[in-house]
Amino acid sequence: MKYIETLHEGDRISDIYLCKFRQAATTKNGKPYDNLIIQDKTGVLDAKIWDPNSSGIDEFDILDYIEVFGDVTSFQGALQVNIKRIRKAGEGEYNPSDYFPVSSKNIDVMYQEIMVYVNNIKNTYLSQLTKSFFEDNSFEKKFKAHSAAKSVHHGFIGGLLEHTLGVVNLCNYYANAYPVLNRDLLITAALFHDVGKLKEISEFPSNDYTDDGQLLGHIIIGVEILGERIRCIEGFPACLALELKHCIIAHHGELAYGSPKKPALAEALALNLADNTDAKIQTITELFNAAGDNQDWLGYNRLFESNMRKTSI
Amino acid sequence: MKYIETLHEGDRISDIYLCKFRQAATTKNGKPYDNLIIQDKTGVLDAKIWDPNSSGIDEFDILDYIEVFGDVTSFQGALQVNIKRIRKAGEGEYNPSDYFPVSSKNIDVMYQEIMVYVNNIKNTYLSQLTKSFFEDNSFEKKFKAHSAAKSVHHGFIGGLLEHTLGVVNLCNYYANAYPVLNRDLLITAALFHDVGKLKEISEFPSNDYTDDGQLLGHIIIGVEILGERIRCIEGFPACLALELKHCIIAHHGELAYGSPKKPALAEALALNLADNTDAKIQTITELFNAAGDNQDWLGYNRLFESNMRKTSI
Amino acid sequence: MKYIETLHEGDRISDIYLCKFRQAATTKNGKPYDNLIIQDKTGVLDAKIWDPNSSGIDEFDILDYIEVFGDVTSFQGALQVNIKRIRKAGEGEYNPSDYFPVSSKNIDVMYQEIMVYVNNIKNTYLSQLTKSFFEDNSFEKKFKAHSAAKSVHHGFIGGLLEHTLGVVNLCNYYANAYPVLNRDLLITAALFHDVGKLKEISEFPSNDYTDDGQLLGHIIIGVEILGERIRCIEGFPACLALELKHCIIAHHGELAYGSPKKPALAEALALNLADNTDAKIQTITELFNAAGDNQDWLGYNRLFESNMRKTSI
Amino acid sequence: MKYIETLHEGDRISDIYLCKFRQAATTKNGKPYDNLIIQDKTGVLDAKIWDPNSSGIDEFDILDYIEVFGDVTSFQGALQVNIKRIRKAGEGEYNPSDYFPVSSKNIDVMYQEIMVYVNNIKNTYLSQLTKSFFEDNSFEKKFKAHSAAKSVHHGFIGGLLEHTLGVVNLCNYYANAYPVLNRDLLITAALFHDVGKLKEISEFPSNDYTDDGQLLGHIIIGVEILGERIRCIEGFPACLALELKHCIIAHHGELAYGSPKKPALAEALALNLADNTDAKIQTITELFNAAGDNQDWLGYNRLFESNMRKTSI
Amino acid sequence: MKYIETLHEGDRISDIYLCKFRQAATTKNGKPYDNLIIQDKTGVLDAKIWDPNSSGIDEFDILDYIEVFGDVTSFQGALQVNIKRIRKAGEGEYNPSDYFPVSSKNIDVMYQEIMVYVNNIKNTYLSQLTKSFFEDNSFEKKFKAHSAAKSVHHGFIGGLLEHTLGVVNLCNYYANAYPVLNRDLLITAALFHDVGKLKEISEFPSNDYTDDGQLLGHIIIGVEILGERIRCIEGFPACLALELKHCIIAHHGELAYGSPKKPALAEALALNLADNTDAKIQTITELFNAAGDNQDWLGYNRLFESNMRKTSI
Amino acid sequence: MKYIETLHEGDRISDIYLCKFRQAATTKNGKPYDNLIIQDKTGVLDAKIWDPNSSGIDEFDILDYIEVFGDVTSFQGALQVNIKRIRKAGEGEYNPSDYFPVSSKNIDVMYQEIMVYVNNIKNTYLSQLTKSFFEDNSFEKKFKAHSAAKSVHHGFIGGLLEHTLGVVNLCNYYANAYPVLNRDLLITAALFHDVGKLKEISEFPSNDYTDDGQLLGHIIIGVEILGERIRCIEGFPACLALELKHCIIAHHGELAYGSPKKPALAEALALNLADNTDAKIQTITELFNAAGDNQDWLGYNRLFESNMRKTSI
Repeated sequence: MKYIETLHEGDRISDIYLCKFRQAATTKNGKPYDNLIIQDKTGVLDAKIWDPNSSGIDEFDILDYIEVFGDVTSFQGALQVNIKRIRKAGEGEYNPSDYFPVSSKNIDVMYQEIMVYVNNIKNTYLSQLTKSFFEDNSFEKKFKAHSAAKSVHHGFIGGLLEHTLGVVNLCNYYANAYPVLNRDLLITAALFHDVGKLKEISEFPSNDYTDDGQLLGHIIIGVEILGERIRCIEGFPACLALELKHCIIAHHGELAYGSPKKPALAEALALNLADNTDAKIQTITELFNAAGDNQDWLGYNRLFESNMRKTSI
Repeated sequence: MKYIETLHEGDRISDIYLCKFRQAATTKNGKPYDNLIIQDKTGVLDAKIWDPNSSGIDEFDILDYIEVFGDVTSFQGALQVNIKRIRKAGEGEYNPSDYFPVSSKNIDVMYQEIMVYVNNIKNTYLSQLTKSFFEDNSFEKKFKAHSAAKSVHHGFIGGLLEHTLGVVNLCNYYANAYPVLNRDLLITAALFHDVGKLKEISEFPSNDYTDDGQLLGHIIIGVEILGERIRCIEGFPACLALELKHCIIAHHGELAYGSPKKPALAEALALNLADNTDAKIQTITELFNAAGDNQDWLGYNRLFESNMRKTSI
Repeated sequence: MKYIETLHEGDRISDIYLCKFRQAATTKNGKPYDNLIIQDKTGVLDAKIWDPNSSGIDEFDILDYIEVFGDVTSFQGALQVNIKRIRKAGEGEYNPSDYFPVSSKNIDVMYQEIMVYVNNIKNTYLSQLTKSFFEDNSFEKKFKAHSAAKSVHHGFIGGLLEHTLGVVNLCNYYANAYPVLNRDLLITAALFHDVGKLKEISEFPSNDYTDDGQLLGHIIIGVEILGERIRCIEGFPACLALELKHCIIAHHGELAYGSPKKPALAEALALNLADNTDAKIQTITELFNAAGDNQDWLGYNRLFESNMRKTSI
Repeated sequence: MKYIETLHEGDRISDIYLCKFRQAATTKNGKPYDNLIIQDKTGVLDAKIWDPNSSGIDEFDILDYIEVFGDVTSFQGALQVNIKRIRKAGEGEYNPSDYFPVSSKNIDVMYQEIMVYVNNIKNTYLSQLTKSFFEDNSFEKKFKAHSAAKSVHHGFIGGLLEHTLGVVNLCNYYANAYPVLNRDLLITAALFHDVGKLKEISEFPSNDYTDDGQLLGHIIIGVEILGERIRCIEGFPACLALELKHCIIAHHGELAYGSPKKPALAEALALNLADNTDAKIQTITELFNAAGDNQDWLGYNRLFESNMRKTSI
Repeated sequence: MKYIETLHEGDRISDIYLCKFRQAATTKNGKPYDNLIIQDKTGVLDAKIWDPNSSGIDEFDILDYIEVFGDVTSFQGALQVNIKRIRKAGEGEYNPSDYFPVSSKNIDVMYQEIMVYVNNIKNTYLSQLTKSFFEDNSFEKKFKAHSAAKSVHHGFIGGLLEHTLGVVNLCNYYANAYPVLNRDLLITAALFHDVGKLKEISEFPSNDYTDDGQLLGHIIIGVEILGERIRCIEGFPACLALELKHCIIAHHGELAYGSPKKPALAEALALNLADNTDAKIQTITELFNAAGDNQDWLGYNRLFESNMRKTSI
Repeated sequence: MKYIETLHEGDRISDIYLCKFRQAATTKNGKPYDNLIIQDKTGVLDAKIWDPNSSGIDEFDILDYIEVFGDVTSFQGALQVNIKRIRKAGEGEYNPSDYFPVSSKNIDVMYQEIMVYVNNIKNTYLSQLTKSFFEDNSFEKKFKAHSAAKSVHHGFIGGLLEHTLGVVNLCNYYANAYPVLNRDLLITAALFHDVGKLKEISEFPSNDYTDDGQLLGHIIIGVEILGERIRCIEGFPACLALELKHCIIAHHGELAYGSPKKPALAEALALNLADNTDAKIQTITELFNAAGDNQDWLGYNRLFESNMRKTSI
């Protein structure tokens, strides 16, 4: 397909894109037309349907994949597509990962790395619990496709997996370096710390907060998901269940960040540190990636409360 | 029974008290003895077992109910019991409410008032849910006996019930006065808002934080209790379940107070206001009750961040 | 009269509206004209005087009531009035409540409910004080017409009355439910808690902060108003005057919200809770009213620090 | 008189001291006696009346001036007086400034410096207002004797005068250096900024918060005092009254410090800066004076949130 | 020269201005042109080069001084210059102080006042240190030309000098009024408190944060500048050096304002008070100057967290 | 030597201990004696010199190492030494690490691990800089012996080395896992991040804050130490020096924690995360070590703002 960032004035396109936005409008002389924004993973583009009632324009909605036939023009210095025909594409005609930002790492390889951790958990109850999720195919499929955020860091396909692996890796390092930590509990908590995001944020293409997300948030959802499964594992020690859930609810580290309890266990503290570390360094990575070749000061960044720039060496 | 606040020097006692504290000690000349604190709802009293190995001294532990035989003496201006014999009392020989602070209101009457609200819920799912708890005898027994706190406000037998009724009453007033509020959702949320305290704080006599309380807190516990029961009610609307749980998790009103979400629904906001109102006015009531006849300034109060005093009229 | 929300392209109007805005401008070819915004309680409308020096255009200012003769046209999709003639209207020709948002409740009925409270105050000094204000006709007239805010909650005609009654009603409920509270002091304080707004915010049509409001604020103004009147009531106990004034100055509850003292009396605390409750629930009511049929998430709300939505049941 | 800091074991005293504390007690063998603390400006001393019912012991209360006859002994390394006789002293027999900390500066000279400022105010209304207070003898007497605090800075006789003069001097400097400031308004506001302390804190010997102080605070009291007087000055411009009162209420600078408004005028800002400057430097002066010859680190100081020490040069 | 604020439609200009902004653009019909903003100390003006490739248009960059030949026209109500020719001006052809805001006070006189303080320092080490800077010609030149800020207060030529003098004057007043302060240390610290700004902010015309400024800030830079010089002064007491540096690093008063230590010495506290006082009063002075004749409320000011207005008298 | 924790009543000692405390006192009957506290790494012990003027008692001061001859007795249930003779020990007679808490890890091995990092720095300037310190014998000796704190975490001999290595190890992990980070800069910054503690805290035995520490703090001291050395390295790039210093000053992460700048470079952010991680996990390790076998809740911990307990598995 012709990616949006490669288009030039004068190109003719007939490819499938995601319809990100659509709104009916009227020209100054009263003629109706449609404003569209079409999207693929390389960017977005304004488009116009000047004859929305034409028979060549199929019915379609925002977030549908649509085959677009049209000409690329330039208006006030920006590219624009004049659309002649639109056809709603069927599932299978397109690959969603062409239309959304996606992890720069190999998703299957990352999942295999996750599975190595899962398979090394020695505590029989934690082992059963983690396998019951990560060996489940439908869970694997959803976990691989999910983002870890609407925007901010890891807001792309595979983002939840990449962030989870980053946190698990850090926790594994901590468990090696600091004997105070129980490896099995810490790795298990890290694997599940953001599992609630599967229900907090809807799948692509919308990738937006759900009612569950708005009303409960991924911390509470995660505890519910784990609690339900734990009840199915015979003999799961009550105290261990409490400690695992505590790590989940305390992983934001501060009440002000939405954790209803501060860390009260060493593993809860360590998980919070790992989550914070991976999130912050990924955020700065995305910030610098977005800056491209710009070696200069990037302006005040609200998240870091500082003007940021790339290092000179 | 002879209540502690009525004892005088020279009295002989042979009554059942709660053993609040026990510690072995040694006199200056090396003789072992035991320091005790015994308690009933009117106060506490120091006691000594000068001959702990005597056959008259049964085995017993802290928080046991013990029948105490001894003489009331005076030491350095304070009363003290010299214990001759101790017998561990059996269940049924004593009434726990004689040994702990207890609500000044009639517990059965309060529960009946709660049931009027339960029976007036019109939404079939919320009605089933509330009845499944409040019509259950073992739940009723526990709910009536529980406190709402280790210390602070409502830290007495019947305290959870009294506070819950206070909040439900306020919510009922709000629902009458402000049409924006849905009565059924608000009353149900108020009935359950502190239900997690049944597991956060252990029953009397210990009335202390449990592992569940320390690691999860009553907000998360409450959501788990409701979630488990809701799954058993066929057809319970998913969105209604979310909204009810949201009211529970948001009822502290601020992230800094342990709510993982701020109120996002009118009923969640109203519940937070009612909880805060009943808690604050009860706290000042207990403060002024404790002050007795003192009409003067009571000194800086950390909770209210102010020096407080009773009003002159 | 023809309300603004009912106008259509092609209508001819000859009605009285409020002039909300007026500014002289020049067309591209150098001709002077006037931009106006006219207002009634249903909305606002752009208007143009293309010939401002015409003899048909009377002299008038911003916030004058003006009779407008003109034609409704459409420009860039929005309605606009081309004004032919303007006449400044005299008092009596219009009813201000047609031009501003107004309480949805019956103002006279609300005032009668206030008077029931006033007449039930038993303390002779507080009774004299409240009657000296609320039985005064000119006070009644101003109190009925005032808003309780420039914007935010209760920012409409009758808003001060409606909010005061809401707070008094809550305080009456508290006085019944919590014996620690002195009813007379609490009701009196509630009646006067925002009386300073009569001078903090100017009357409609401007409904804006005055110099008094900017420099002192309604809390200090309220204390001055009460202090002046109390000096005229022989034998008014000094301590009671202090306690009443304290309730007024502490009713915002926190120094950060402009109260120079935190509540130090039970009634001051209760008044703060009532004020906060009525204000918050009214704010959410106005938010949801403004959302109309929108059952969806309304976006992040700065005041509630949350995304809000209406409840599903 | 024999000052307390000069007493030694074996001295016999027969001098007038202030009774700071008195409490009845009982010896181990049941004999009643009285514990006293007596005070003069150099310190405090424990004292015992071993025979409180003796005819030599007059009736007296805490904060009375008492003539004490007794012997200085040593108990557990500290001095103590065994009192034989006590006589309540009459007014005129003692000079209160012998019994309380007192300004190290000449009080009369400071008042004369204040009067120079008063006499230089050019605005006729502000001039009338300041003279109506500072030329009044009874006001002068109270103003000279008052402290500016119960403890913290300037908590001594003449403290209110010394602090007021310090602030006025700074404001005078500001008015010279920064033309944006109106001298008359600023000097007047500085003269009156803490006038409310005359009623917030009771006179020596008690020097403690009054009901007025607890319930209203010196900011509100100050505004009331000025408002009452302004009403007596014919033609006092309303706007000038507002501006003066604003300076008073905003002089703490932050809502969190009890100002119901932040400074909105240049003079209000300047007054806040002057008040803060004089208070902070005086506090550090008192801290270093109390440290005597100690050139070392004095330990963490809560007010300055720092470990403090004297400078080496 | 013809200052920008004096230009009218129809004027022809041929004067030197600073080029503040330049960007290439294209007309609707594809013709390239340049957008410029030119600046002098009286304001800024839009300008267009319609024929950027003309031989009359010299090469030049942003922040160059350029001689502009063109005609003043009016576009959409605003003035604009159509530029015919541009010539880059050489150093000496223009006076930078014509192009930037400049202190309203006499810079040479202010420096002389600084020198009086320098010459009165009695401590031999502090005297050597201050003279080594302020008697140095190249330092003097830079110090006189520098601003004290990019924007906010004293953001003009001579601003660093004016602010430093303001702070030194205040410190001199403090040293007279409060004996706890050591004059030599305080005056020296005041003279150098913002010396780091010479490297934190680049010189005019850019007057912007440097890498040093972004990465270290003027507090750290100032300590480095002093430390380097102190090492060259034989026998400079180590403790005195520490105390001077402490005053520099603590002069913002709060960790939250970028001081790594809170004031621990009386002089550090006094310097913080002086810095804060001069900065705040200057800020309000600039605010009111910018308001011109406007005697009305100026709207909410974020720095002062208040709506501000000029005083009525 | 006989360690303090192994002593029993009746033992006779003649060993070298550290004198932690000494104070002259007087018995009830007026005889002078000395109170001492003696210390080794296993604990502290009260001691008395009943005859301080005896010829057997050498001159010595607090923090001297003293050979103590005496008998262990028991007083009120606690051990105590009655000292007969004291001799001040000479350097070489004792090993300081017997008298203070010391890292549980091998100090020489840790230093070798540090040196591996030092030797792997590729950037020539950073390599020269790190080697100039870590290859210096006197620096090595001091660095190995220093603590990283007066109390809190790593407050023992070797603590600065252990903490530095912990942080460097984490940074090394980050540099492997996150390509956005420059390894050389990050490792160098980690090696030096707390180098200022060498002057902020005095060496054992006192291990207390110095004047440098109180007035400047280890962040500023560290920057000075690095700056001085960098000036000696020819050609050290100015920008690299800034970036390294920035990492040092920003490593506390927040202004409120004493960093005068928030992290503006990825490496500064990473260093802050590593420092925080090692400090927090070490703190919890020390907390749990101090708790010994206690598996129960340890009570509210101010640093973690939570009640803490060891994990059950």
